[in-house]
Amino acid sequence: MKRIDSVQNASVKSWKKLHTKKEREKTGLFIIEGFHLVEEALKSDIVETLLLTEETNIPAAWKLDNISLVIVTEEVIQLLSETETPQHVIAICKKQAYGEISMEGTFLLIDAVQDPGNLGTMIRTADAAGVTAVIVGNGCVDVYNGKTIRSTQGSLFHLPVLKGDLSEWIPKLQENRVTVYGTSLQNAKPYQDVQPVKNAALVVGNEGSGVQQELLSLTNENLYIPIHGQAESLNVSVATGVLLYYFCHA
Amino acid sequence: MKRIDSVQNASVKSWKKLHTKKEREKTGLFIIEGFHLVEEALKSDIVETLLLTEETNIPAAWKLDNISLVIVTEEVIQLLSETETPQHVIAICKKQAYGEISMEGTFLLIDAVQDPGNLGTMIRTADAAGVTAVIVGNGCVDVYNGKTIRSTQGSLFHLPVLKGDLSEWIPKLQENRVTVYGTSLQNAKPYQDVQPVKNAALVVGNEGSGVQQELLSLTNENLYIPIHGQAESLNVSVATGVLLYYFCHA
Repeated sequence: MKRIDSVQNASVKSWKKLHTKKEREKTGLFIIEGFHLVEEALKSDIVETLLLTEETNIPAAWKLDNISLVIVTEEVIQLLSETETPQHVIAICKKQAYGEISMEGTFLLIDAVQDPGNLGTMIRTADAAGVTAVIVGNGCVDVYNGKTIRSTQGSLFHLPVLKGDLSEWIPKLQENRVTVYGTSLQNAKPYQDVQPVKNAALVVGNEGSGVQQELLSLTNENLYIPIHGQAESLNVSVATGVLLYYFCHA
Repeated sequence: MKRIDSVQNASVKSWKKLHTKKEREKTGLFIIEGFHLVEEALKSDIVETLLLTEETNIPAAWKLDNISLVIVTEEVIQLLSETETPQHVIAICKKQAYGEISMEGTFLLIDAVQDPGNLGTMIRTADAAGVTAVIVGNGCVDVYNGKTIRSTQGSLFHLPVLKGDLSEWIPKLQENRVTVYGTSLQNAKPYQDVQPVKNAALVVGNEGSGVQQELLSLTNENLYIPIHGQAESLNVSVATGVLLYYFCHA
C-alpha cells in the first residue's frame, strides 16, 4: 500500500486541483469524501484511488479490487476535504460514461440551476421518484462540484445524470413519444389540470428567471404550481419534487 | 435623522448581538437585511429601526412612519451583515405576536429540523401551499436565525409561525377536528392511500431521525412518500412540499 505523508506531494497537488471544474473537465476525474458517498461510488465501480489514514476503519463489505489504496496523513485529508470535520476517507473517481439511455419513463431536464445544493437535491429527488435519467443543461452549475455531490447523498451514482443541450434533448424525447412539460408562470396551466402520462419529461429552470423562453417554446405544454398564499414562488428543488411525484404515478 | 459612524457605537454593538439566539430571545428583536425582506417586514409592521447608508435609494412606496431611521457607514453595514455583498439596508424588527389562530385549514408542524435553510424553505413552501399556520417545535433551529429568514424569502412575515410544544399542539388540533398526519418510514401508509381532508395537519421531522416516536404515537395516521429509485430518503423540505401540495387541494 502506497503512503503519502507530504501535502507537497505531486499527486496530492493534482487531487487538490479536482476542486476546480476546469481540472475535472480536463482529467475526467472528480473527488468525493465521506463513508456514505464513497460506498455508493464503490458500488458503481467508478473509484480509482482511495485515500485513508492509519486510523480509518474500512467497512468489511467494501470491495477494493483494482482500486489504488493510499495511506495519507491527517494534514493531507484536511487539505483535500471541503467539510469542517472530515471523515477520513476520500475517493478519486472517474466520471461515468452512459451509453444509450432508455427512452421510457420520466425524465428531468434542468436548465441553468446555479445553486449546487439545489442541483444536488434535485438529482436526489429524481432518484427517489424513479426518474429514468436527468439531463443537466449547459448553463447549470457543475454536477461534480463537491457541494452538489454531497447534496445528492449518493443519488448521482444511482441513475444516469447527463450533461446536454436541452434544445436538442426536447425534440429527441418527443420523437420517442415522451411528452415534454415546461414550467413557467406565464402562458401555462396548473399542473393538476394535466393527466399524468407514462412517458413524460419535466423541464425546470433557473432560481431567478425560470426556464429559458427558447426551451418553453419547444415543449408540448407548460405548467405551473398554483401559489395559494403570499409567497412569490417555490424553491426550485421543492417545485421539482411536487411535480415529479405528481408525474411518477402515471 | 440619526447618524452613526462608529462600529464601536453602543447601539451597533447591541444590534450585532442579535445574530445570537440568546440575545434575540432576551430582547424579542431580530435583524434582517436586503430590500426584499425589509419590504416584506415593513408590510407586516414589525420594523422598529431601519439602517441605511448615504447611498441607499429607498423605494418611494415604503411607508416609514413611526420607524426610527439611522444613517450608518459602510463599515457598520459590513459589521452587521451576514452576506458577502450586502445590500445597504438592514432592519431591526420585533418578533410578531400572534393571538388566537384559526383552527381551520392545513397546518405544518415541524419537529427538530436542524438546518436553517431547510426550515426557511419549509416556511416558504407552507406559505405557497396556503397553510393556515406553521408550528415550529422546541427542538428546531431558531426561526429568527439569519439564514432561516433569508430562506423563507419573506414568507416568515406572511403567515403565523409559532414556536410550540408539538405534543400539546397535536391533541389541541385534534380537539378542533383537524386530522393529524405524521411522517414515518415505519408503520405508515403511502400518502396517496389517504384521501385529502379539508382540515389536516402534517408533522415532519429531523433530517436524520425523522419525527420523534412520542409524537408519531399521538397522530391520527402516519404516512410515507414511496421511494421508487435507490435514494434512501427525500430532503425534508422537498418531502414537505410533496405532502403539503397533496393535502392543500382537499
